[in-house]
Amino acid sequence: MIRFNSDYLEGAHPVIMAHLLETNLEQTPGYGEDAHCENARAVIRRLCAAPDADVHFLVGGTQTNFTFLAAVLKPWQGVISADSGHIAVHETGAVEATGHKVIALPAINGKLDATMVDDYCDLHFADESHEHMVMPGAVYISNPTEVGTLYNREELSALREVCDRWGLTLFLDGARLGYGLASPENDLDLPFIARTTDAFYIGGTKQGLLFGEALVITREDLQPDFRYIIKQKGGMLAKGRLLGVQFEAALEGDLYMEMSRHAIDLAMRLKEGLNDLGVSFMIDSPTNQQFPILPDSLLEDLRHRFSYATIQRIDPTHTAVRFCTSWATRGEDVESLIDAIGELL
Amino acid sequence: MIRFNSDYLEGAHPVIMAHLLETNLEQTPGYGEDAHCENARAVIRRLCAAPDADVHFLVGGTQTNFTFLAAVLKPWQGVISADSGHIAVHETGAVEATGHKVIALPAINGKLDATMVDDYCDLHFADESHEHMVMPGAVYISNPTEVGTLYNREELSALREVCDRWGLTLFLDGARLGYGLASPENDLDLPFIARTTDAFYIGGTKQGLLFGEALVITREDLQPDFRYIIKQKGGMLAKGRLLGVQFEAALEGDLYMEMSRHAIDLAMRLKEGLNDLGVSFMIDSPTNQQFPILPDSLLEDLRHRFSYATIQRIDPTHTAVRFCTSWATRGEDVESLIDAIGELL
Amino acid sequence: MIRFNSDYLEGAHPVIMAHLLETNLEQTPGYGEDAHCENARAVIRRLCAAPDADVHFLVGGTQTNFTFLAAVLKPWQGVISADSGHIAVHETGAVEATGHKVIALPAINGKLDATMVDDYCDLHFADESHEHMVMPGAVYISNPTEVGTLYNREELSALREVCDRWGLTLFLDGARLGYGLASPENDLDLPFIARTTDAFYIGGTKQGLLFGEALVITREDLQPDFRYIIKQKGGMLAKGRLLGVQFEAALEGDLYMEMSRHAIDLAMRLKEGLNDLGVSFMIDSPTNQQFPILPDSLLEDLRHRFSYATIQRIDPTHTAVRFCTSWATRGEDVESLIDAIGELL
Amino acid sequence: MIRFNSDYLEGAHPVIMAHLLETNLEQTPGYGEDAHCENARAVIRRLCAAPDADVHFLVGGTQTNFTFLAAVLKPWQGVISADSGHIAVHETGAVEATGHKVIALPAINGKLDATMVDDYCDLHFADESHEHMVMPGAVYISNPTEVGTLYNREELSALREVCDRWGLTLFLDGARLGYGLASPENDLDLPFIARTTDAFYIGGTKQGLLFGEALVITREDLQPDFRYIIKQKGGMLAKGRLLGVQFEAALEGDLYMEMSRHAIDLAMRLKEGLNDLGVSFMIDSPTNQQFPILPDSLLEDLRHRFSYATIQRIDPTHTAVRFCTSWATRGEDVESLIDAIGELL
Repeated sequence: MIRFNSDYLEGAHPVIMAHLLETNLEQTPGYGEDAHCENARAVIRRLCAAPDADVHFLVGGTQTNFTFLAAVLKPWQGVISADSGHIAVHETGAVEATGHKVIALPAINGKLDATMVDDYCDLHFADESHEHMVMPGAVYISNPTEVGTLYNREELSALREVCDRWGLTLFLDGARLGYGLASPENDLDLPFIARTTDAFYIGGTKQGLLFGEALVITREDLQPDFRYIIKQKGGMLAKGRLLGVQFEAALEGDLYMEMSRHAIDLAMRLKEGLNDLGVSFMIDSPTNQQFPILPDSLLEDLRHRFSYATIQRIDPTHTAVRFCTSWATRGEDVESLIDAIGELL
Repeated sequence: MIRFNSDYLEGAHPVIMAHLLETNLEQTPGYGEDAHCENARAVIRRLCAAPDADVHFLVGGTQTNFTFLAAVLKPWQGVISADSGHIAVHETGAVEATGHKVIALPAINGKLDATMVDDYCDLHFADESHEHMVMPGAVYISNPTEVGTLYNREELSALREVCDRWGLTLFLDGARLGYGLASPENDLDLPFIARTTDAFYIGGTKQGLLFGEALVITREDLQPDFRYIIKQKGGMLAKGRLLGVQFEAALEGDLYMEMSRHAIDLAMRLKEGLNDLGVSFMIDSPTNQQFPILPDSLLEDLRHRFSYATIQRIDPTHTAVRFCTSWATRGEDVESLIDAIGELL
Repeated sequence: MIRFNSDYLEGAHPVIMAHLLETNLEQTPGYGEDAHCENARAVIRRLCAAPDADVHFLVGGTQTNFTFLAAVLKPWQGVISADSGHIAVHETGAVEATGHKVIALPAINGKLDATMVDDYCDLHFADESHEHMVMPGAVYISNPTEVGTLYNREELSALREVCDRWGLTLFLDGARLGYGLASPENDLDLPFIARTTDAFYIGGTKQGLLFGEALVITREDLQPDFRYIIKQKGGMLAKGRLLGVQFEAALEGDLYMEMSRHAIDLAMRLKEGLNDLGVSFMIDSPTNQQFPILPDSLLEDLRHRFSYATIQRIDPTHTAVRFCTSWATRGEDVESLIDAIGELL
Repeated sequence: MIRFNSDYLEGAHPVIMAHLLETNLEQTPGYGEDAHCENARAVIRRLCAAPDADVHFLVGGTQTNFTFLAAVLKPWQGVISADSGHIAVHETGAVEATGHKVIALPAINGKLDATMVDDYCDLHFADESHEHMVMPGAVYISNPTEVGTLYNREELSALREVCDRWGLTLFLDGARLGYGLASPENDLDLPFIARTTDAFYIGGTKQGLLFGEALVITREDLQPDFRYIIKQKGGMLAKGRLLGVQFEAALEGDLYMEMSRHAIDLAMRLKEGLNDLGVSFMIDSPTNQQFPILPDSLLEDLRHRFSYATIQRIDPTHTAVRFCTSWATRGEDVESLIDAIGELL
């Protein structure tokens, strides 16, 4: 069985593991107050050209999302998300469990449209009964999105403008940020993201670390006392050093982007290979998640040799599935997958 | 200015007020443990043919909805509602504030369709990632709905069946229950509602009382310790007697239905009058809320003499508005309204 | 049976009832946006010498407490209260249900001591693990306290100073505020309270209204969007006018203080009468709640003729009980009570 | 600097690290559904003689505590804890943030006394106002406690009996469970704990793993759907295998107890050494945390060479501090510490 069902199938990149081993017997303070975390924070601030940003390391993505949103929303505010957004669908209501509605607007190619957000806010505040409805307080986007698509500078700037108009906090979920930055279609970079959003995170779990997400809070009034809520929500790892060491290893040099480029190269090869076979796609994804539409009969055979995620029924005989690549994907496995699909078609 | 914008424009029916005055100097225990509450509970149990039901009196509808749902849902469960449902739109995220997602399904004529609920649950539990999504735990419906429509026995029974299949609690919001029961199109009665739902409430606030909702919990495992959460959520009125006295006055005799019939008669007269003028409606409502579509130019004039609620823009020159009748609406005011619209058309 | 167990045994003062009747058929907007509420707000601002205060009318005390505290606390903050405070004991964890710890400090005569609050904050912020503990964010006091005692100007000013030092919101629960202001030992007045706290409420339920509390928010940054959370937490009465009408009736003239003085006069008479009989008290209360310590054998007889609240076992044969007076208490009933105890002793 | 301030100063035991490295490139399903987790679960069930127990792996202790308690408490229930309990003091109000009061009773030697719990429940349910107070719903204990002490069989059985009497869930926090089981004073074992509590966890973070806690739920009605709330509260590690691999490595053989015994041996040596120097202790701890009372002047010197946790001021010139041992503590470092204190005394 060769697995393509997600980008967190293996442990961590060997270089990451080596750093964990090397530092294993060091004695450090707990809770992210060690030298490795300090160093990783400095590296991230430098990469983001954000010398005043606060950087916190949390364990996972769901945790990072609900912790940040719970910290910044007033009790009567909700967060606007595309209806395909991770917080709207796949976090078991974690945001609602902190007391806040996820206001789901229809996604366009997996993305939230600035005009749609603007119209929603306009309608909300114009309504004579607006106090009877949840006040929009933040905007959540993911980049790459859950279907692999990317925001460009224009789209992100438009969201920034709308957020400024209505007083909304703009938060970007970067669980797969490296795959976005390494995509041939990308025109963002870390400094642009840092200065355009109020906060975002650089994903580790799906990007070759054992686990971990680096939350970057650039807006100053959101920074004070943030460590309290990390602790309260269960995100403050006792051996916080594990996060510092991993992000240090990934970001001090080029490893993070190297892993991301590897995954993107193979994803583009897979896309091209399936395209050549005449396969169509649920969506045109420029990142490491590919969503081909395949005949059910083919999938019935394929699943004995390759794992994939089932996404959506397209018609009575076809289903869209997801293949992911990662730092650990091997070129020959991608070729085997293309060949297998070619033979089965 | 003659007001038609809601059904809670005045205080209470004079008979209700008289009972409050008569009992004003009685000394009673607090928190709903007085003889008037006991009596009102007995009356309600009798009317519902539900001798084992628990009956609680709360102050308002939003409070009743979130208190009941918070009590019965597990932390990881949400409540299914029509996307036009009061809890989904007009309660400032009160249900989410207790930690639970409102799972909004598209309304059909303001109603939740049993098949759609069934399909949703089927998809949820069949999904390999179902633990990453909010588990459906209850179904919320309102009758009459927010757009004045009614469930019939067949529809309510179908929802019951789906709830049984998936282990969901069925809760009916009866903020305007009397107007539903008094409608010419209604085929429900209190005993049927009591035995088909797990809990429901008989509305007072919009039905001629000063305030108050009578929550009837028929499912036995939902009954124990319920008074704790009423207190915790702020719904336990210190002078609980005020609720008992009012429901007693309304329900011991025919007053509650008499008030409801009065409102329905005038609503039907308004509907007929506007129909005769060629006015069309956003929806065909058989209850005390009527939703005519009127030219914006007409409304511009009308609003100086009659109040209404603005509901929805229909096209660039027309808007759907809401007129409500109640126990306090006067026949001559309805005629004036029809005449005024006739003249302005 | 003559009841002394609480100060909310009857309905409302006849003048209040008369105003409700007079205005019963007026048509008004809902949710506290009517002319009576506007007027009552203006009266309260005037009485408090707080022209910029926001005034909101809520239904009950528990609701007012948790709604205000939920609105002002950050998710990782708790509220400091005397361990005898209403929110710490008798609100079924309503504050915790909004996510916030009640940090209970030992009460001294039912009161919170400013030095103790200061020391607590000092210890908290000096602790190297302070992020692992709930951050103090507000101070809750009640005046009169739950055992009838009063803060004086010096004590309240000291709390203000400590709150300023540590950035805490100072909130005063005035469920029985009138009885405090009418006490011979009182040296506070509404303008002093308004300018010394950040918010407080003027109680109605226990002070001769049917129900209702008038929340006065003086600190400006706590004012915006507050109506959203009132709606969310179930405190926005649809017929909000009922609150406006009652507070108008009570506060436009001298009725509120007249009712309070009546209760205090009778409470002082009761205290004196029992003192003369040699009865000792659990606490020296200058307000409408009196806490005599009585032999269990006496209480066994007394309870068939007079109701009281059981407070605390003092020794194997004596119990402290509570007698309350109110606007509705009759002088002859107080004399009967004194006589009965005298005979039974 | 030699660190003794906690038992999570290093990474993980080399054997654990080796297992992580060996399995690093395996492809596995996520979220704890891999073969390593399955195997670790089977091992734990066997060790606990609890074939029907559910075993879940979470990342940290605070997370495990609030996730379990949030899952089992009704909204109006709280959890009884010693006032020194971790959930009462050092989790930033995590339990309250899920809506539940921590009912803190005075600790006796860091432990909760069964009679005190019984009395508390008795008073609660006997009180005529019990619905106005938080209902006790669970009992939380930690073993070893936060001050290193241990429950014996008799004490744990007494708590079980009280929990049965009042319908309370009994939950044991075993963050340092191994150090307890390895203590010379211990008379518990895993099967006894498993059959006496409703749920408990076997700590990893403080016991030589990188991180991770194994929650064992033995009561069957608490088992269904538990994975939903783990996901919702952020405790479901994407690469769940990391937890399975670590617990497998620790528990399949004797490593977990071997590490624990090592720590206990050195803690007993430290205790003996300080005793010989005439040092007194804040509490008599039979486990890996030792709490000597030392002169402030001595500590001023000591802290340049040895780290410790400051616990409590004892008198104007003495402070109780905490030294922890762990699997990683070296015998020679303990001797150096004893020598250093001996010289400084």
